[in-house]
Amino acid sequence: MRGWLDDRRGYMKPVQIGEVMRAGALGYVAKTGKGSKLSVGDLVYGGLGWREWGVYKEKEMRKIVVPKGVDPLDFLGPLGMTGMTAYFGLFDVGKIKAGDTLLVSGAAGATGSVVCQLGKIAGAKVIALAGTPEKCEWLEREVGVDKAVNYKSPNFRQEFKDAVGYIDVYFDNVGGEILDMALLRLKKNARIVLCDSRPYGITGYLNLISQTATMQGFLIFDYAERFPEAIQTLSNWLKEGRIKRKFHVVEGLDKAPEALPLLFTGGNTGKLVVKVGDYQRAKL
Amino acid sequence: MRGWLDDRRGYMKPVQIGEVMRAGALGYVAKTGKGSKLSVGDLVYGGLGWREWGVYKEKEMRKIVVPKGVDPLDFLGPLGMTGMTAYFGLFDVGKIKAGDTLLVSGAAGATGSVVCQLGKIAGAKVIALAGTPEKCEWLEREVGVDKAVNYKSPNFRQEFKDAVGYIDVYFDNVGGEILDMALLRLKKNARIVLCDSRPYGITGYLNLISQTATMQGFLIFDYAERFPEAIQTLSNWLKEGRIKRKFHVVEGLDKAPEALPLLFTGGNTGKLVVKVGDYQRAKL
Repeated sequence: MRGWLDDRRGYMKPVQIGEVMRAGALGYVAKTGKGSKLSVGDLVYGGLGWREWGVYKEKEMRKIVVPKGVDPLDFLGPLGMTGMTAYFGLFDVGKIKAGDTLLVSGAAGATGSVVCQLGKIAGAKVIALAGTPEKCEWLEREVGVDKAVNYKSPNFRQEFKDAVGYIDVYFDNVGGEILDMALLRLKKNARIVLCDSRPYGITGYLNLISQTATMQGFLIFDYAERFPEAIQTLSNWLKEGRIKRKFHVVEGLDKAPEALPLLFTGGNTGKLVVKVGDYQRAKL
Repeated sequence: MRGWLDDRRGYMKPVQIGEVMRAGALGYVAKTGKGSKLSVGDLVYGGLGWREWGVYKEKEMRKIVVPKGVDPLDFLGPLGMTGMTAYFGLFDVGKIKAGDTLLVSGAAGATGSVVCQLGKIAGAKVIALAGTPEKCEWLEREVGVDKAVNYKSPNFRQEFKDAVGYIDVYFDNVGGEILDMALLRLKKNARIVLCDSRPYGITGYLNLISQTATMQGFLIFDYAERFPEAIQTLSNWLKEGRIKRKFHVVEGLDKAPEALPLLFTGGNTGKLVVKVGDYQRAKL
């Protein structure tokens, strides 16, 4: 969302001043037009934007069938875009395998916390980076990473080196200085999954050569056709309790502008959701 | 070679003070030990170092059989490490295909000039960067690139943009600021082949995400088993005149220390070779 506010070339047109802010959202169908395949009460997901209601074309959304034992809210978390990002980013782009050392930044976030758990399921050693002692404790105790390191610690550089050793896969949710540090800790044929980033002058990319490593950006929309596969697998892992999730719910559309910056100040733990109405009015 | 002189972790042990400088070289066998599979007069290639003669183990070199119509010197050029680098870097890592726009930096160099010609053979539009008007002219007239741009021109940024448009494959022989500029001109699913580089704070790597692009380092030694395939293909293209090459020969081992810096000042055009003796005494 933050990227869409910059007036520069990206993978989507920037949101213009005066337009409804673009956002993925869950909603339910209150009324249908002629010939619609949707029914009143259906749960849907789409780029519905920052609004309480609206009139949309059917192609702007897809119907969500909630598997038994799974919370509809999970379609904004492990079964939604963040979950899809974790799944395809780690398995397809990162090519994680048993015995790998996986480093995850933004590990207490919505995507990061799923990445950590998928890493453990894959049999990797998982090192997590987060910005408060509480988040680190949550990652070690609940999420089950091998080691969580606080990147705001005064001894972070040394603690990072000690905990990380050398990396097979780095799932990058932050970019910048930490990406640069990770570049210096690559193993042979390492893979860096660029998921979210911010501008910073990285210098360590020379190690991509000496370690014949890969740094690859990806967009989750490219995997849309394979979402059903991921949703099925992730739903099973959720039901088996192998994936834990945390939501940070802010109530009220008027709170949305102050909710977004929480993502940049570390003010949330888990998936940040703004609740603008009652999706549970959908027939489930 | 320059990298081997830095005392830091790389893909090979740094060369120590007092050791023979490491270098790939052609030589001929003057004497063989017991049970050797080589014969006196054989042409060999190996990490023979900066020296006129030496005593080596057989596994440190491989015998070169020079195909008819090809100069033995080509095994230090298009049929040597620089040619192998161009071949596997462009075809395997860069996955070049007809219709692609290919950008090559250091294009008048030994690797770069082969990359440009392989790009044309593959059916790509080739934009070349070099550091003098003479090199640019050579690239356009002889090597046959679509456009060569002088990166020392005062209007380079604008000329770069106009010539390059957007890139499918960037074969990077220089890193730094030009890598950063190339990052801003990526097409969807672009591939950056990191071949040689120098430290610089690159910021444009965010475009790897928005264009779902890949930046991959590689080392030619990983492809050793496939050298015969490349040598056969490249030899044919050499004989057909589809690949042109230029050598810059410096005579005398004592000139080697002043020859190496030419690579960093742009003082050479084509493959820089130091001739320390007469490889043509080999039986060919």
